[in-house]
Amino acid sequence: MHYNETNQRALRFLSLDMVAKAQSGHQGMPLGMADLALVLWTKFLKHNPQNPNWFNRDRFVLSNGHGSALLYALLHLTGYDLSLHDLQQFRQLNSKTPGHPECTHTPGVDTTTGPLGQGLANAVGMALAEKTLAAQYNTDTLKIIDHYTYAFAGDGCLMEGISHEACSFAGTFGLGKLIVFYDDNGISIDGAVERWFTDDTAQRFLAYHWHVVGPIDGHDPIAIEQAIVQARNETRAPSIIICKTTIGQGCRFAGQEKVHGAPMTLHEIEQLRQNMGWDYPPFEIPASVYHDLNHHHTGRVHEQAWLTDCLRYQQDHPAAYDEFLRRIQGEFPVDWMDETQRFLETCRKNPSAMATRNASQYCLEHFAQALPELLGGSADLTASNNTNWSGTRAITAQDCSGNYVHYGVREFAMCAIMNGLSLHGGFIPYGGTFLVFADYAKPAIRLSALMKKRVIFILTHDSIGVGEDGPTHQPIEQIAMLRLTPDLNVWRPADLVETAVAWQQAIERQDGPSCLLLSRQTLPAQVHSEFSVQQIQRGGYILYDSPTPPQLIIIATGSEVQIAKACVDYCQKNHIALRVVSMPCIERFLAQENAYQELVLPTKVRKRIAIEASTSDYWYRFVGLDGCIIGMTQFGTSAPAQEAFLYFQITVEHTIAAIINLFSHTKEIHYDNTCCN
Amino acid sequence: MHYNETNQRALRFLSLDMVAKAQSGHQGMPLGMADLALVLWTKFLKHNPQNPNWFNRDRFVLSNGHGSALLYALLHLTGYDLSLHDLQQFRQLNSKTPGHPECTHTPGVDTTTGPLGQGLANAVGMALAEKTLAAQYNTDTLKIIDHYTYAFAGDGCLMEGISHEACSFAGTFGLGKLIVFYDDNGISIDGAVERWFTDDTAQRFLAYHWHVVGPIDGHDPIAIEQAIVQARNETRAPSIIICKTTIGQGCRFAGQEKVHGAPMTLHEIEQLRQNMGWDYPPFEIPASVYHDLNHHHTGRVHEQAWLTDCLRYQQDHPAAYDEFLRRIQGEFPVDWMDETQRFLETCRKNPSAMATRNASQYCLEHFAQALPELLGGSADLTASNNTNWSGTRAITAQDCSGNYVHYGVREFAMCAIMNGLSLHGGFIPYGGTFLVFADYAKPAIRLSALMKKRVIFILTHDSIGVGEDGPTHQPIEQIAMLRLTPDLNVWRPADLVETAVAWQQAIERQDGPSCLLLSRQTLPAQVHSEFSVQQIQRGGYILYDSPTPPQLIIIATGSEVQIAKACVDYCQKNHIALRVVSMPCIERFLAQENAYQELVLPTKVRKRIAIEASTSDYWYRFVGLDGCIIGMTQFGTSAPAQEAFLYFQITVEHTIAAIINLFSHTKEIHYDNTCCN
Repeated sequence: MHYNETNQRALRFLSLDMVAKAQSGHQGMPLGMADLALVLWTKFLKHNPQNPNWFNRDRFVLSNGHGSALLYALLHLTGYDLSLHDLQQFRQLNSKTPGHPECTHTPGVDTTTGPLGQGLANAVGMALAEKTLAAQYNTDTLKIIDHYTYAFAGDGCLMEGISHEACSFAGTFGLGKLIVFYDDNGISIDGAVERWFTDDTAQRFLAYHWHVVGPIDGHDPIAIEQAIVQARNETRAPSIIICKTTIGQGCRFAGQEKVHGAPMTLHEIEQLRQNMGWDYPPFEIPASVYHDLNHHHTGRVHEQAWLTDCLRYQQDHPAAYDEFLRRIQGEFPVDWMDETQRFLETCRKNPSAMATRNASQYCLEHFAQALPELLGGSADLTASNNTNWSGTRAITAQDCSGNYVHYGVREFAMCAIMNGLSLHGGFIPYGGTFLVFADYAKPAIRLSALMKKRVIFILTHDSIGVGEDGPTHQPIEQIAMLRLTPDLNVWRPADLVETAVAWQQAIERQDGPSCLLLSRQTLPAQVHSEFSVQQIQRGGYILYDSPTPPQLIIIATGSEVQIAKACVDYCQKNHIALRVVSMPCIERFLAQENAYQELVLPTKVRKRIAIEASTSDYWYRFVGLDGCIIGMTQFGTSAPAQEAFLYFQITVEHTIAAIINLFSHTKEIHYDNTCCN
Repeated sequence: MHYNETNQRALRFLSLDMVAKAQSGHQGMPLGMADLALVLWTKFLKHNPQNPNWFNRDRFVLSNGHGSALLYALLHLTGYDLSLHDLQQFRQLNSKTPGHPECTHTPGVDTTTGPLGQGLANAVGMALAEKTLAAQYNTDTLKIIDHYTYAFAGDGCLMEGISHEACSFAGTFGLGKLIVFYDDNGISIDGAVERWFTDDTAQRFLAYHWHVVGPIDGHDPIAIEQAIVQARNETRAPSIIICKTTIGQGCRFAGQEKVHGAPMTLHEIEQLRQNMGWDYPPFEIPASVYHDLNHHHTGRVHEQAWLTDCLRYQQDHPAAYDEFLRRIQGEFPVDWMDETQRFLETCRKNPSAMATRNASQYCLEHFAQALPELLGGSADLTASNNTNWSGTRAITAQDCSGNYVHYGVREFAMCAIMNGLSLHGGFIPYGGTFLVFADYAKPAIRLSALMKKRVIFILTHDSIGVGEDGPTHQPIEQIAMLRLTPDLNVWRPADLVETAVAWQQAIERQDGPSCLLLSRQTLPAQVHSEFSVQQIQRGGYILYDSPTPPQLIIIATGSEVQIAKACVDYCQKNHIALRVVSMPCIERFLAQENAYQELVLPTKVRKRIAIEASTSDYWYRFVGLDGCIIGMTQFGTSAPAQEAFLYFQITVEHTIAAIINLFSHTKEIHYDNTCCN
């Protein structure tokens, strides 16, 4: 199993054949990075194709994910469950070989890439996970977690801002087992990058305290091998290997942007076959190549050796091993459910007004003690997000055994690094910033959802309740933006009890990310029965009901639930049968059976009001054309929080005016405003 | 008018008094950067407080916008229309001194800042505007555009990814009149930055080919003056002055994170007054300070000199001067309206199937010839976004006189730079990327809207029509995300005619940004009457109507309008009176008078279907609880575009099934799905 001319041609033509058959995709990068990939995969990468999820494998990240054909070809040739037929289905519906690598679709793909720069940050997260787990569990003699993280990255990745955030972070935290291959081919889609990207990348990474290797000839296997050895030997700092390559190497338009993403014609490929002396028809691979590149035996040997180490570790450190195993298998402590129920009951019995960001910290204090896998952090807003707790211990370059990461003012990288931590396994990452700055991290939050990873986003200061900081810091459209992102659970709790359930559900949700939107300002505790506490996890539930069938339903979330509740008096006095529905997590409510939804929001009750200090547009979904929304239709304003709420009429008085309006006459629809203005 | 001890104390205490009175805000930065600010503003900054919008003024950007008190104090002391009373209203409702600087609220504030890093990118845009206008209009002897752009930035700004994108760009394009002051105080909110931010910033900026000055003592007026001279003298490269400062200088917690954002007590400030020998009560400024710092006379002299130059320029180059004046005043050529109407009529009369990204390029070809202020670009996707045209000439470091910017793979910086171009004036910037990557640029798009700046975002590949590139590249929630952002106009045209109107409206909209969402795939031309073309600008209009009053309304946008139209046959055969509404710009439709809205969407017609290959949730606003939405409820898939549309049932067949369903029975509401599945 080794690098040679035949093998590298096989890898190249297999990639080319995929793109040619699909008549779609990118051949420039696979041809340019084939030599690098082959040397890395044949001589260094520790993995087991028979168990793609082997925990101690080296991680491999294709940050320039448009080169997916190269990765699929490698996976096929080294013996993953990815057949020639799968390769022939490249970029077709329901195939295992989608246009960009998706970790949810293909065995051996460690992360979903394509949106540039994010793979790099995922790799930083994986390397952080490795270093932290190693610091927490390894002993001097037994290293049950011990692997490298390799990433391929192109000019696009290095132009993206997230590369700065992630690589500056990796340098500071001394992630020495992270090795990045920079595909320095001088070409991006618009042409030669010298006209828009002239960074001295070596110098830039030296400024981040990285170990810089090269520039090397990225087509010279000996230089590549030496560079990788050099990079692996430096374990105090992350390494970047600067690889001079030719995009689309071998093709007619090699070294030009034309070769990047425009599939070659079959005729052009045929000519290339002749020029390079490759006599095999498309998708035919000589047996010798399979023989050379198959990694089953070596993979098994590697994993077996690790299992032996694990057994020895288990004997010497049974408790630590149990915990390690529990963490990497994503299981909960045996008393998890009982303890959680007890905690919820304690919260219920001790109602107390507090900001939900404080409630969140109170919950953390409980959950984090039980779950060492909770790895917290904040993008430099720890004391505002309340993401720390009494047991918080910061991770540093020198001591990585802690449980808290000061991510710096790097919201986007924080979220993409958390994706990497979650992808790696052994951790439930959570991290905080202001809700309005979810904007900065949106692309990473989206990828959490697309990858179905358990990541918990703590987003505080969740409305105009931010107050004086003003419209730049007051979220308006962000709540809806998050709710509209598929597969994301968005919790906006109204008090401590709802916050506790939100935390519980976010932790227990193993197949996707959750957001906790938390208030800066103090909120009153709602009265919860044992029954209603059990209903919270359904995402929407009846918090208050009149004894007679409802004529009016007010739906509210978070800080606005108190406004809904404050209308009870008015309705009682005016003989309006009111129901108040608290809706802390719409995605959860939408996932309930129809009968439950109908029970909470009966179809025939059309007098409905939604209250949320957020963009009102979203709520038509529940109030329809005949209801009313008390919400925001413009940017916020700099003023003390209470004055801001008054100014935007998110008040009890205005809600009562809306009730009067709803009960007084039928009206034309005004699409352009909350209907009660 | 000069730097001295009294003046700097006045500036410091005025800032402190503001924060103390509001009991909210940030004093650490104002105290830390007061010396820098005072030297810059008294000795170098060219501005005229009596005309804050004087075109050739130096631009000043407070990228670390939380230090707003410093800026307001400077504006007050130098004679802007910002009274002591205004300062006393710091952070209060409807004041001219909001929590973070807002260019829409305060004379002399050149850009809205607060979201970190973006001000820096705005400054890059302003410097690019200056350099480009200078290259286009200045002669060897007459420099009618000739100013510096100064920016203050903190650790937070430099940690943010956008600082990489923007500064790498500025270095490549040699923006030599951009001067950044880096407030290197070693503190961010979580504490001493050495634990999470260890960049060698000088080396990093050298890697970007910047001119690095310092580190200097940021409290030493002589060192500051020398550094600024040095920076101004280097005009081939942007300069960064690394300023070692003490956050909260003078306070008890100076140099610590505590001083950043926690207002001091009145007692603490009183003590500080005594320690620093400042005998004046809060908000009392000695007359000598006003006398020293008032900039009215100098400002008038500066502006007058420029006007004299302009007069001479007008005599020598009357045509160029007319154009220059028209551009900086934001006016249109005299024949603009006639030409545009003629162009729309040509488009109408020559229907032709094409992708709307091609239609957009066709429109550019027309509009850009007439408007040299249109400054285009793309984040490295020129040939995909079709943002170029036959007259495109790329701007380079050496020749900045062109009209097209290769922004590189830097979506976020591109949009923030476009904000800077628009803020500067003289340009209508437009720039392209894929719609899905609007995520990367969201924070800048939001600020365009908050600042009400004319910026045109060209967002192509606007649905699962992206095809094989798969879910990482297929927008789902992005259209709604943009629509939910206040003050943004989002156009999703269905054909060439609608695209032409979208371009026209985006260009003519002087008080806010517009997005043009464009298809990758070919779309048929719709049949337009002269009348219907005039209706497009209303955002939603009747594209097809049955002769009898409508029983069913189908609303669609962009590529899905063809699906709506294809249902006409079925409805005719089945005697269903169908109306098809094309809704290219919802914000525009919502801005119409209620009578028009009622005319297009009569309240009583409740059988409504919305079709859009985008998150379906948004459309409840128009179809309510009884209608039906054909849209997306999950992430996309990698497959040829037509197969993706079939797979997600965004088809004529499925729409007809929905019609049958709507007309066959009343039903319970299912919130969790498009109601017709």
